Amino acid sequence: MAAGTFYVVGVGPGDPELLTMRAVRVIQNAPVVAYFCRHDKKGHARTIADRYIRPTTRELRLAYPFTTELSVADPAYHTRMHAFYDKSAQDISSILTNGQDVVLLCEGDPFLYGSAMYLFDRLCSTFKTDVTPGITAMSGCWAQARQPMTHGDDVLCVLPATLPEPELENWLERADAAVVMKIGRNMPKLQRALARSGRLDDAQYVERGTQENGFSHPVTDCAEKAPYFSLVLVPGRKGVR
Amino acid sequence: MAAGTFYVVGVGPGDPELLTMRAVRVIQNAPVVAYFCRHDKKGHARTIADRYIRPTTRELRLAYPFTTELSVADPAYHTRMHAFYDKSAQDISSILTNGQDVVLLCEGDPFLYGSAMYLFDRLCSTFKTDVTPGITAMSGCWAQARQPMTHGDDVLCVLPATLPEPELENWLERADAAVVMKIGRNMPKLQRALARSGRLDDAQYVERGTQENGFSHPVTDCAEKAPYFSLVLVPGRKGVR
Ligand SMILES: C[S@@+](CC[C@H](N)C(=O)[O-])C[C@H]1O[C@@H](n2cnc3c(N)ncnc32)[C@H](O)[C@@H]1O
Ligand SMILES: C[S@@+](CC[C@H](N)C(=O)[O-])C[C@H]1O[C@@H](n2cnc3c(N)ncnc32)[C@H](O)[C@@H]1O
Repeated sequence: MAAGTFYVVGVGPGDPELLTMRAVRVIQNAPVVAYFCRHDKKGHARTIADRYIRPTTRELRLAYPFTTELSVADPAYHTRMHAFYDKSAQDISSILTNGQDVVLLCEGDPFLYGSAMYLFDRLCSTFKTDVTPGITAMSGCWAQARQPMTHGDDVLCVLPATLPEPELENWLERADAAVVMKIGRNMPKLQRALARSGRLDDAQYVERGTQENGFSHPVTDCAEKAPYFSLVLVPGRKGVR
Repeated sequence: MAAGTFYVVGVGPGDPELLTMRAVRVIQNAPVVAYFCRHDKKGHARTIADRYIRPTTRELRLAYPFTTELSVADPAYHTRMHAFYDKSAQDISSILTNGQDVVLLCEGDPFLYGSAMYLFDRLCSTFKTDVTPGITAMSGCWAQARQPMTHGDDVLCVLPATLPEPELENWLERADAAVVMKIGRNMPKLQRALARSGRLDDAQYVERGTQENGFSHPVTDCAEKAPYFSLVLVPGRKGVR
């Protein structure tokens, strides 16, 4: 019996209409869909793809072993995440070996800061794999904010707000256009880095881009802590007008 | 009579299945579709969206006034492009004023190096506008190359190959992950900058990503000149494994 194919599918930033035709086809044909989630939650990617999953499709929940109990700075974090990804890949591998296809749902685009990559890396040399790109959170957010981003030969930098403050400041100073992701508790640090790099006045905050109740406003109006679905846009210099 | 809405729609990097459900809905409901093209060609975005355009939909071709006759360095280039965008916005504006919606088709995502931004800037304060994000060329290309790009707190830089060589080298050295677009005749310069920044061995070239006959191979195997539909990927450092 031939082994199944491992499909990795981007489901976009939140609006269910922002799945591609290809993503919808792959999900609708799936005997099994898998997705990461917190043990007590449905999973963002699962929620976004909801309307396309058939009632007869089997679901494989990949529940993270912890949420905020362990810090990324703790070596135990990496050991336990490594084991979690190994176990998840093993579970998917068993299904594939039995001849069934598995579709892994991923928020946004799978290869841009997506956990899907850790399973792809573990399975791609053993099984047939197929990757469907997704609308990234940043594309969803700059459409939501109605903010054109890069013109002419602007350089765009995509930065995680988890970087040390001086590095963040340095990148913001050099970049023509920038997107800052993974904000959470890093908002005060990010605001200081934006101010010192001279970019604060142009920076737009976007929350729940493309989702119901999504909105955007200047970063200067932000609270101290940002929710998971949020990022900051710094538009590039203008080119030909 | 109410004025029409100006829809700006990303159609993705080439595979017609990579339009979103939203893009397809907007295009299928369009009384008028507009798109940029060379005077002697069909237009990339128009070709990608082909199967979704109804026979009864009116088409507004926005043909660039020149192709390679004028260099970007020539001041006449900017004067003529400015006039061309003014005229295009005027043509769309007349239709909107007459109460019809206009859908502007854009390769990839409209707000990432897209000419659509010049029309959006001219029309957004006068008319109702609606922006549908698209799959970017880079997402299509890293899926095509099966290349996970950014992990953990990697910084991603998106660079136009039109930058001066020392700047390109400097960006490639600093970035964890990089995407280089607009290659064309800049390939030899890009190869030198990749070599001097120590990134040449990891760099993947992708041509016609997600399109029929799309392919990827190491940059070291590249010819001197690259076609329009091509870019280079430098994957980021690995995070948790
Ligand atoms: C682990 S990364 C995943 C990125 C995703 N793979 C992509 O292609 O954009 C999670 C980050 O994406 C951003 N994000 C995802 N969806 C978002 C949305 N709808 N609105 C704002 N930010 C979003 C947040 O910054 C969050 O910290
Ligand atoms: C004017 S920019 C438009 C970018 C587009 N708006 C996006 O979101 O990616 C054109 C550049 O996109 C890249 N590109 C577009 N489609 C591509 C494809 N299918 N394969 C490889 N590169 C592509 C090339 O580098 C080209 O020079």
